[in-house]
Amino acid sequence: MATVVTDTPRLPRSLVARFEGLGVATVHEAQGRTGLLAATMRPIYRPASIVGSAVTCEVAPGDNWMIHVAVEQCQPGDVLVVTPTSPSQDGYFGDLLATSLKACGVRGLVIDAGVRDIADLTTMQFPVWSSAVYAQGTVKETVCNVNMPVTCAGQRVRPGDLVVADDDGVVIVDRREAEAVADKADARIANEAEKRARFEAGELGLDIYGMRERLAEKGLRYVEYVEQDD
Amino acid sequence: MATVVTDTPRLPRSLVARFEGLGVATVHEAQGRTGLLAATMRPIYRPASIVGSAVTCEVAPGDNWMIHVAVEQCQPGDVLVVTPTSPSQDGYFGDLLATSLKACGVRGLVIDAGVRDIADLTTMQFPVWSSAVYAQGTVKETVCNVNMPVTCAGQRVRPGDLVVADDDGVVIVDRREAEAVADKADARIANEAEKRARFEAGELGLDIYGMRERLAEKGLRYVEYVEQDD
Amino acid sequence: MATVVTDTPRLPRSLVARFEGLGVATVHEAQGRTGLLAATMRPIYRPASIVGSAVTCEVAPGDNWMIHVAVEQCQPGDVLVVTPTSPSQDGYFGDLLATSLKACGVRGLVIDAGVRDIADLTTMQFPVWSSAVYAQGTVKETVCNVNMPVTCAGQRVRPGDLVVADDDGVVIVDRREAEAVADKADARIANEAEKRARFEAGELGLDIYGMRERLAEKGLRYVEYVEQDD
Amino acid sequence: MATVVTDTPRLPRSLVARFEGLGVATVHEAQGRTGLLAATMRPIYRPASIVGSAVTCEVAPGDNWMIHVAVEQCQPGDVLVVTPTSPSQDGYFGDLLATSLKACGVRGLVIDAGVRDIADLTTMQFPVWSSAVYAQGTVKETVCNVNMPVTCAGQRVRPGDLVVADDDGVVIVDRREAEAVADKADARIANEAEKRARFEAGELGLDIYGMRERLAEKGLRYVEYVEQDD
Amino acid sequence: MATVVTDTPRLPRSLVARFEGLGVATVHEAQGRTGLLAATMRPIYRPASIVGSAVTCEVAPGDNWMIHVAVEQCQPGDVLVVTPTSPSQDGYFGDLLATSLKACGVRGLVIDAGVRDIADLTTMQFPVWSSAVYAQGTVKETVCNVNMPVTCAGQRVRPGDLVVADDDGVVIVDRREAEAVADKADARIANEAEKRARFEAGELGLDIYGMRERLAEKGLRYVEYVEQDD
Amino acid sequence: MATVVTDTPRLPRSLVARFEGLGVATVHEAQGRTGLLAATMRPIYRPASIVGSAVTCEVAPGDNWMIHVAVEQCQPGDVLVVTPTSPSQDGYFGDLLATSLKACGVRGLVIDAGVRDIADLTTMQFPVWSSAVYAQGTVKETVCNVNMPVTCAGQRVRPGDLVVADDDGVVIVDRREAEAVADKADARIANEAEKRARFEAGELGLDIYGMRERLAEKGLRYVEYVEQDD
Repeated sequence: MATVVTDTPRLPRSLVARFEGLGVATVHEAQGRTGLLAATMRPIYRPASIVGSAVTCEVAPGDNWMIHVAVEQCQPGDVLVVTPTSPSQDGYFGDLLATSLKACGVRGLVIDAGVRDIADLTTMQFPVWSSAVYAQGTVKETVCNVNMPVTCAGQRVRPGDLVVADDDGVVIVDRREAEAVADKADARIANEAEKRARFEAGELGLDIYGMRERLAEKGLRYVEYVEQDD
Repeated sequence: MATVVTDTPRLPRSLVARFEGLGVATVHEAQGRTGLLAATMRPIYRPASIVGSAVTCEVAPGDNWMIHVAVEQCQPGDVLVVTPTSPSQDGYFGDLLATSLKACGVRGLVIDAGVRDIADLTTMQFPVWSSAVYAQGTVKETVCNVNMPVTCAGQRVRPGDLVVADDDGVVIVDRREAEAVADKADARIANEAEKRARFEAGELGLDIYGMRERLAEKGLRYVEYVEQDD
Repeated sequence: MATVVTDTPRLPRSLVARFEGLGVATVHEAQGRTGLLAATMRPIYRPASIVGSAVTCEVAPGDNWMIHVAVEQCQPGDVLVVTPTSPSQDGYFGDLLATSLKACGVRGLVIDAGVRDIADLTTMQFPVWSSAVYAQGTVKETVCNVNMPVTCAGQRVRPGDLVVADDDGVVIVDRREAEAVADKADARIANEAEKRARFEAGELGLDIYGMRERLAEKGLRYVEYVEQDD
Repeated sequence: MATVVTDTPRLPRSLVARFEGLGVATVHEAQGRTGLLAATMRPIYRPASIVGSAVTCEVAPGDNWMIHVAVEQCQPGDVLVVTPTSPSQDGYFGDLLATSLKACGVRGLVIDAGVRDIADLTTMQFPVWSSAVYAQGTVKETVCNVNMPVTCAGQRVRPGDLVVADDDGVVIVDRREAEAVADKADARIANEAEKRARFEAGELGLDIYGMRERLAEKGLRYVEYVEQDD
Repeated sequence: MATVVTDTPRLPRSLVARFEGLGVATVHEAQGRTGLLAATMRPIYRPASIVGSAVTCEVAPGDNWMIHVAVEQCQPGDVLVVTPTSPSQDGYFGDLLATSLKACGVRGLVIDAGVRDIADLTTMQFPVWSSAVYAQGTVKETVCNVNMPVTCAGQRVRPGDLVVADDDGVVIVDRREAEAVADKADARIANEAEKRARFEAGELGLDIYGMRERLAEKGLRYVEYVEQDD
Repeated sequence: MATVVTDTPRLPRSLVARFEGLGVATVHEAQGRTGLLAATMRPIYRPASIVGSAVTCEVAPGDNWMIHVAVEQCQPGDVLVVTPTSPSQDGYFGDLLATSLKACGVRGLVIDAGVRDIADLTTMQFPVWSSAVYAQGTVKETVCNVNMPVTCAGQRVRPGDLVVADDDGVVIVDRREAEAVADKADARIANEAEKRARFEAGELGLDIYGMRERLAEKGLRYVEYVEQDD
């Protein structure tokens, strides 16, 4: 029984806005090194960077019908997250659907499958993170769920979760933890700024982080180079 | 017995010209969703877009000898299509061969193997679609066929077939069907322009394509969101 | 017993400088088609091109501790070469470590694993060749060797070996053979310049390299095209 | 904050027993074509077939410490489900841990990573489904969650969910839906038995399932073979 | 327009029988090192060995409908060759379809996709060569061609071509060349028998094939081992 | 300049014999978790287990000529280790070469490429660890090194190094460290026997290895299960 869930929740815009400018790596660290989609998910052009609320969409292999259904559930500021029910690299998405999503104010697409028309998508500056670029056409025969929790590229995504994507990939923030994650990310950014200044000044991580003693305890030893053949 | 077939046919320039500006996805759709090379075939730089008549060339693994033989069979407007007789990612092709092909008026290379000197090829703006970038050198020991039908990246290619390649990948058009495909592609382009305007105006695919009834027939139902943990 | 070898040798700057401007393919050919890292090693941005002396660093899977140790062993003009002791695509390296290496005068990073913050690395123009881009964070728990010989992406690398990297990938030159390789590369460049001019003028490789006779001996035959369905 | 959840629920033995003898494909179909782990999960020996209640365990890449923690949470009839927090193919599990699990009455292991000592595991007849066989040793440095919901090979698994595994792979049944799934699976088995008899008697699926009319509606046509070259 | 071609040709049984007992490697060599399907095509159990006439079948990704159509075209002694129109690893085929094919006298299945119920298929001794084992169910929505030429795992297959499959993989013999290939294979077998006896007696290939002179001409030199570190 | 090194060293038979019955995992651990070939190297049949002295052999891609050269350098008790100079999955090795190696007393083959005739090799019980099974034939055109140090599947191998291979894969022992490794392996075996008895008796690794305190220090906490939807 395929189901479309309507009226899914979104975070307040002010909270979403706190994630703008935060990179994927920072957010991933801020929430305890969780939430990353697989490394196979790459942006179709670079640089690209978005944050928005997830609308989730399952599709049958080689069948993009449900994306049309999902578009109707999208609101300005959303990110559409599409995952096939079985692995596929077909070209589920091209410039017409991008035009439709853009008209709805959607910020980008995350899809664990293929996309096409990437020259047009680049010109339009509609960002997509996908696991393939492939022109293979799809059918419209099978209904699946929209806005139900999905596993996309190894990561659980619920409707309304925050999607943060940049050149490094994609990370998901649980909607209910977004505020706490934003706080931790801010703290991390502040801390990194101070560290960066010290690195720029030539200080070593060994000293900045006080690592030398623990390295020695773990048995690391230093020896001088002796020429040998191997 | 390795064979070079000479005097292979080409389509008239006027017919080839009809494919310029048509994308790979459009051509693939226009001929009934056939003809795509595998998604592993990627352009070495972007954007890149060509159309031309195939000169086909088989090469032994790690042996680029036959590319030199194939160059002689090329004419202005051709695209060289190279496939190893067994999988290889070696660097069969670099800036010298590109210089030679360019001097012959060849529009680009499609190779289900590796290429090298891609910085130079990018500067020269000689486009290549390949399954690998790898500097590994090759030998010149084994003779293979030139201008015989080949299977390249999963797709049958005959000499004189039309090769259309862009940022999405590569599609092959049977020479004998090119005119009909061009007609269908033109119709598709016209149809898409009208659709694009409606999408831009905010209309939904559900309505543009009249999908709602059939979705309901297939059992799609809509329910309102209820907060839950999962 | 994890060991850091200090005071490893470097080649004289004048010899290193001879490799600047030489491409990976040229150097690979000049040393008898050896020394290439696997084709999975790709630059995070293009164009990118460096040459420098290797500082080698092993890391445990998902553990980037030793990179901090390796930074201290780096000198201006070095290239850091990092290899995990078991396959990993985690994000071992980001903008802070890049800032540190840049402050030390290091020319770039070669790592058979993942990196992150690639938008920042691109802005900084700190070049990296890696087998993955992935934001996954790492721990600091396990000590490994620095400046011991390693196998990185299928290639033996010793501290002080020359690392040459460009858009084609990465090649290693044995420190003890660098002078001879530079000589052969220079000769190759000169030879190619002459060849390039002939190719540009429309001469064929078949004639430039005198291949026709040997091709015939190997049994290559030419036949005229006859229309058939296949 | 790494957490071990104790006293997780299991299904009654009588309900688990209903799944014995049901294949993975049957269970997958019975629950609406959901629940499969990725095709990369293969048994280390064949035939192998188990059903049991999931104990879930996260491990750091290259670090098998938490498996020892998880063993304590196992009861007779359980199946241990292990997933690394970042992709790894290291050998997390060998004959000693298998001895420990067997002593606890555990029926098998599902791990999206590597295992080793597979000759011994085969002799012991302790079945394992894994994504790799690799002898690479692991460390014991990082704590992770046990018996929290995990994503393993693309599939959500909660403690107490039913794990059904055979030569085809692994399928997860939501604990709360197990009874309904068992009912549907039984119905499917009954239906297939009747179908199998008809197939054995030489009847065609076209007739058993009454497909001919709908195929014709979709435009399928029959033509007689004409000899041609292609 | 999906088409089923009926009354496709088969080779006489006596000619097919000449290939029984010939291995895939022998047949591949006998026809000039052509005809192999990709190395991804593996038997689901070993040992397995068949020869038969191809019935070809295209299927949509995740859609096994056309296999039911193809069964009707099969005759005793045939081998069904199935290829998806876009890459898929779904489980297109299981024990019911195997029962049906077996009832028709079909000798085995070659499919560039997934199969399931492999424990049952093994018990039934119905051999399958596939690129995946995966229980994922499929739909029945899209019509495709049956008994048209296809590309399966990189190889052109026409209806009536000979399929030879064993533990090494699958090779296709053009129906129109089968007799000549059988002759060459027989000659190769005879020649190998004589060679095998000499190898068993301890003679070296260097001498049996008279390689020493040509090796020296190519520059191979022999030096005695000197202990060194590398 | 291709070179064959003759009269390479071997370890005394008594020392080699100490490794018989030691598994790959044990040897890998005994030498500090080093020496493993990549997980892509799998035995063509199971169970299989060998130990012997390495004869190393480089081959050009798609060219098995040098294996014939290497056979002459083999002695009873050796293991032939073959690596292509660029990645290849071609079938370099089949039943004739196996017959030759067997006649020379060679114990098995390790090859980072393809093999064929695996049904015959299984019947002969000539064990092979390879990265592919593929019938693709090879040529005999290019000379390479024999008994020079090579990198095979990511691991440095020198002639005379010990090769230990079993169902888990392949590990290399530096010839100069073999005695020390054998000592450590024996100690490990003794230790594991004692541990195994305790595991069989139902003791937990947490107690056998005294892990509880350190787990708590790292912050592991235990909480009781509370039913929730996620």
